[in-house]
Amino acid sequence: MRPSGRAPDQLRPVSLEPGFSRHAEGSCLVKFGDTHVLCTASVDEKVPPWMRNSGKGWVTAEYGMLPRSTHTRTDREAARGKQSGRTQEIQRLIGRSLRAVVNLQAMGERQINIDCDVLQADGGTRTASITGAWVALHFAFQRLIKDGKLAANPLSGEVAAVSCGLWEGTAVLDLDYPEDSKAEADANFVLTGKGGIVEIQGTAEQDPFSEDQFLELLKLAKKGIGELSKLQRAAVGLD
Amino acid sequence: MRPSGRAPDQLRPVSLEPGFSRHAEGSCLVKFGDTHVLCTASVDEKVPPWMRNSGKGWVTAEYGMLPRSTHTRTDREAARGKQSGRTQEIQRLIGRSLRAVVNLQAMGERQINIDCDVLQADGGTRTASITGAWVALHFAFQRLIKDGKLAANPLSGEVAAVSCGLWEGTAVLDLDYPEDSKAEADANFVLTGKGGIVEIQGTAEQDPFSEDQFLELLKLAKKGIGELSKLQRAAVGLD
Amino acid sequence: MRPSGRAPDQLRPVSLEPGFSRHAEGSCLVKFGDTHVLCTASVDEKVPPWMRNSGKGWVTAEYGMLPRSTHTRTDREAARGKQSGRTQEIQRLIGRSLRAVVNLQAMGERQINIDCDVLQADGGTRTASITGAWVALHFAFQRLIKDGKLAANPLSGEVAAVSCGLWEGTAVLDLDYPEDSKAEADANFVLTGKGGIVEIQGTAEQDPFSEDQFLELLKLAKKGIGELSKLQRAAVGLD
Amino acid sequence: MRPSGRAPDQLRPVSLEPGFSRHAEGSCLVKFGDTHVLCTASVDEKVPPWMRNSGKGWVTAEYGMLPRSTHTRTDREAARGKQSGRTQEIQRLIGRSLRAVVNLQAMGERQINIDCDVLQADGGTRTASITGAWVALHFAFQRLIKDGKLAANPLSGEVAAVSCGLWEGTAVLDLDYPEDSKAEADANFVLTGKGGIVEIQGTAEQDPFSEDQFLELLKLAKKGIGELSKLQRAAVGLD
Amino acid sequence: MRPSGRAPDQLRPVSLEPGFSRHAEGSCLVKFGDTHVLCTASVDEKVPPWMRNSGKGWVTAEYGMLPRSTHTRTDREAARGKQSGRTQEIQRLIGRSLRAVVNLQAMGERQINIDCDVLQADGGTRTASITGAWVALHFAFQRLIKDGKLAANPLSGEVAAVSCGLWEGTAVLDLDYPEDSKAEADANFVLTGKGGIVEIQGTAEQDPFSEDQFLELLKLAKKGIGELSKLQRAAVGLD
Amino acid sequence: MRPSGRAPDQLRPVSLEPGFSRHAEGSCLVKFGDTHVLCTASVDEKVPPWMRNSGKGWVTAEYGMLPRSTHTRTDREAARGKQSGRTQEIQRLIGRSLRAVVNLQAMGERQINIDCDVLQADGGTRTASITGAWVALHFAFQRLIKDGKLAANPLSGEVAAVSCGLWEGTAVLDLDYPEDSKAEADANFVLTGKGGIVEIQGTAEQDPFSEDQFLELLKLAKKGIGELSKLQRAAVGLD
Repeated sequence: MRPSGRAPDQLRPVSLEPGFSRHAEGSCLVKFGDTHVLCTASVDEKVPPWMRNSGKGWVTAEYGMLPRSTHTRTDREAARGKQSGRTQEIQRLIGRSLRAVVNLQAMGERQINIDCDVLQADGGTRTASITGAWVALHFAFQRLIKDGKLAANPLSGEVAAVSCGLWEGTAVLDLDYPEDSKAEADANFVLTGKGGIVEIQGTAEQDPFSEDQFLELLKLAKKGIGELSKLQRAAVGLD
Repeated sequence: MRPSGRAPDQLRPVSLEPGFSRHAEGSCLVKFGDTHVLCTASVDEKVPPWMRNSGKGWVTAEYGMLPRSTHTRTDREAARGKQSGRTQEIQRLIGRSLRAVVNLQAMGERQINIDCDVLQADGGTRTASITGAWVALHFAFQRLIKDGKLAANPLSGEVAAVSCGLWEGTAVLDLDYPEDSKAEADANFVLTGKGGIVEIQGTAEQDPFSEDQFLELLKLAKKGIGELSKLQRAAVGLD
Repeated sequence: MRPSGRAPDQLRPVSLEPGFSRHAEGSCLVKFGDTHVLCTASVDEKVPPWMRNSGKGWVTAEYGMLPRSTHTRTDREAARGKQSGRTQEIQRLIGRSLRAVVNLQAMGERQINIDCDVLQADGGTRTASITGAWVALHFAFQRLIKDGKLAANPLSGEVAAVSCGLWEGTAVLDLDYPEDSKAEADANFVLTGKGGIVEIQGTAEQDPFSEDQFLELLKLAKKGIGELSKLQRAAVGLD
Repeated sequence: MRPSGRAPDQLRPVSLEPGFSRHAEGSCLVKFGDTHVLCTASVDEKVPPWMRNSGKGWVTAEYGMLPRSTHTRTDREAARGKQSGRTQEIQRLIGRSLRAVVNLQAMGERQINIDCDVLQADGGTRTASITGAWVALHFAFQRLIKDGKLAANPLSGEVAAVSCGLWEGTAVLDLDYPEDSKAEADANFVLTGKGGIVEIQGTAEQDPFSEDQFLELLKLAKKGIGELSKLQRAAVGLD
Repeated sequence: MRPSGRAPDQLRPVSLEPGFSRHAEGSCLVKFGDTHVLCTASVDEKVPPWMRNSGKGWVTAEYGMLPRSTHTRTDREAARGKQSGRTQEIQRLIGRSLRAVVNLQAMGERQINIDCDVLQADGGTRTASITGAWVALHFAFQRLIKDGKLAANPLSGEVAAVSCGLWEGTAVLDLDYPEDSKAEADANFVLTGKGGIVEIQGTAEQDPFSEDQFLELLKLAKKGIGELSKLQRAAVGLD
Repeated sequence: MRPSGRAPDQLRPVSLEPGFSRHAEGSCLVKFGDTHVLCTASVDEKVPPWMRNSGKGWVTAEYGMLPRSTHTRTDREAARGKQSGRTQEIQRLIGRSLRAVVNLQAMGERQINIDCDVLQADGGTRTASITGAWVALHFAFQRLIKDGKLAANPLSGEVAAVSCGLWEGTAVLDLDYPEDSKAEADANFVLTGKGGIVEIQGTAEQDPFSEDQFLELLKLAKKGIGELSKLQRAAVGLD
């Protein structure tokens, strides 16, 4: 029995609240249970120097946690003067995941900056971030269409993410913090709405695991991401 | 006529929502119109090295803005690797203001870290922060009482803050961003619930102003902070 | 009785020694009693990127303390790798105060960098800095006139600063270190030579203070700044 | 046909040269073709503060590239003043991978620092690093045994790593730089000598890939790591 | 003919003004012509961690230039966030030079921090710094004697420094800035009052120079340092 | 008797292995006994901003030590976030030394970056670096000739370096670590192949030394550098 009482293949209650932020071209407050992340998409009409005159655009991401989003207070990265390795790893992952479903040529020579800021953390902040950031990004592209700067949305489909893990020997979907901190293995899956694999990161936290166990996790992820994609489409009014 | 249609001595709609953050010992989401700040208070049972064995506690504050809390995106301070002068100035102000109403001796040798993170900015983020932080701090002390670590709340009363300014020649209360960016003078007042002055910061943005003009601003501030204190007391259940 | 034996409304002996620095376009060694600050003004024919083609100039300031300007040695900020919040707060204040009396349009598209370096500290380093920096700035503008780059001095008048405080219940002018470290309230006033208010920063160090007490401090400040302005005019040869 | 002429399931020539470094407790110069990494293992009799009195040891890793290990010169991270996100991601991966085969309890309360410095890069530096680091770590433990500080080697077996990818539609083993820069998908596998999965990181560089494609990559990885483990055992004299 | 009209073996006018700084245990304003450096010596009753319980003391130095000590303004190192290579090289040299004449055992387990801050620069700031720092250090030791913490001054004699160079083919003593910027060779000599060599740093700025030329420079340095040592002894009241 | 059994005027076994690095335009692995340094020369067709349109080129150097090149592990400078004073001092020395034998006009408006990375340290890393860097630089220029970008090699001759010191009262050539850590005096000499002096840095580690002792060290250096220059010429095929 999972601490939360969920079935092994059950997501936490997920909500996607677009338009949370008044100033951003696109925004979404995403909640995976008690994990709450504010995702914003900001359009910048300039690309980084190394992309100029390439005719292509770019999507990049930054990630942060509010100091007291965590169970005990975490030092503020701005005060420490640098971002941790974990932060950099996560923001690179978010950027890569989103770019996998963007036609960079079609979006024009501009950059979209995704910011994922964790207001409250209870496990799975990176997967919630990717899922919510896609919604924010969608709206930022819609804004560009509305402003006559783009003819069509350059997103080729949805991308969403979820974690799965081995917890007390069972494969479970969407780990929350109490599970995450005790899991024997932990994997993050980033899949498209059509089930294509964008990114897989699996780690044995204790003993190495087997190919069969890994395939069980992948199966759970496909189920979960199917549900998340449906929620994403609903949030942006596609269904 | 003010851009928002408010009367010169009228605050924006203000709300104080305690308990917004699940993990913090005290928290409050404060809204002054479209300015939204999440304030948390985290108890640390250790004081900084220079205070050890003093028998006294300490209250300190940190401040940050989410990158897209602003009209156009602002660089993330954690990514730039340092906090701006403005950030440091504000967090020092918040800490000083709160300490003015705390009996440091009575709170015991522990530290409370206040975090004020701006989710959305529309002028007056520092005054909203102080006002909301007081509520978060109150609840953190109440938690210590509930846990049997304190006998009474070491707060001597409320402290709140508001900005006033000269806008098109008129003294107005609680500047929002459109006013703030054009004001001829701008002053932040930090007062106690009983009207005592804790901090005054007034700046001529264009021409120097006169003593009489300054006294008009102070009068508005007293009115506004009277109203804010009432809201604070209601939020913590004191009235 | 003040520790120094001064009357409540008496400044420390003040001297303004222009031309202390051989290389700077303008310079002044300012002494408020044992507080000694070297102020230089350096002309840079370029403005910062965000001001280019605005037709306006800019005045900015930096502040530093020599490590042993203080009673016990303070760490060197260059060695620690960052400037403290206090340093940044002070240098922002100096810049704002000077700009309040400069016609930025008239000074042409160039920047003047003010450096205020404290050689010896005994309280009131920020107010001495502003007062001395005005003299340095005046001479830098005179140099531009002499070099045929400006037709007239773009300063609209003097600006000077002084601190006042409540010390053992009495309002006193121009706090030195022994007073400053025990004052119940402390306020810095930046006024023009004509008495206009440029900046007010007042802080209750212990209990909140009243409006009447604040007005007493302001009255002292006006008297003190009247005297400082006279010394400034003498130092630049205007009287 | 691969640019190097290798068969799809063929590793580059791999060599593991232990004892390259005179001072380190364990060391290995690992070559995967033209990718050369110097791995050292340094014993530190102290653990980090958060592990003290836990009775357990720790293995951590750092990674760096010499500025001209790359085709064109890369800026030196020490000169830029910070490590890139990529560097931090890699060194976290190396540490996690090694710890998966170390009995931290058995190694005693000490820390081993692994340094992986890339002398020459031609793709796959992180997988070569893990493979070579295991050899260096083995020798560091042997040194502790020889010095009477450990009774037995706390390694539970080998761990090695290899990259696989989709290159022009074909699944290939051990990507070199010309392949890596054009691969459609790229995955790094960290497996134990017995075939257990320690870490999987797969990324679609262009279009998402399918589960079947992923299983092909995993199959290649198992074959490659089988060969690498054999070379590791030979290098440390276990076979 | 030298730009300054000095004879080849002639120092600039040198003055050593002790007690310039009110707070420091020892201080000296040293002037080599238009090069002015404020040297302070601060006693710290703690040694750095790596020296604890060694029974020995330590002398260390820091060096800085005020931004407008130079002909055109130099960026402030505290604002840039790091000390330049040149600064670090100079402060290491000052520390080594002073330690050469201090009996570290005899000075007791305490540290003296030397700060050399250049108020105005016209060439030779490092040699002026060493020469003035010795005077400040002497007085700091005298203060320790007066306070009953030391029985005798642990300085074994004077140490002073001067630069020599080849300028238009002639060996000249004590280069000022106009000479320094055109010299064919430049050498800094640190010698004791008795003529012992503590440090030599010679650099060919253009063509390599010969042993004979080098010996000429050394001869000039001995003469110059003889004069400087006499001035040092006078400044501390030894003659 | 020296710890290594060498005669006082005997170099360690020296080898210069060009072409160690596959990607660099020039490279050399230099060994002075157990001190091993990898030197690379990277051509950059751009000069730094302050040299643009000067018609001259530039040679600059960076230096680093692998963390476990030393007897006990040294912290990685990239992880600490800054280069030590020692590192900066050495890389400035390497750059200056090489520029002394380069015709900057003749090399064209491009920059060559020298990287000296210590793989293993046993004393004399800076002198080995200079000696090996000259070989790398020579080959980088040869590459530019081969590519038709230069007509002739802009090197005016060799430059090499060696340390000498007083060890147990005897002047000895080419100190290794056991000697270096106990030497009474230590000097680094950078000379051209023709015996011209480029740089001299001598330091008394304990008591000051005399002119006669210094001349003995210089004599040894000349002998050693004569031998090193011969090895350099052989390594680049000039003899």
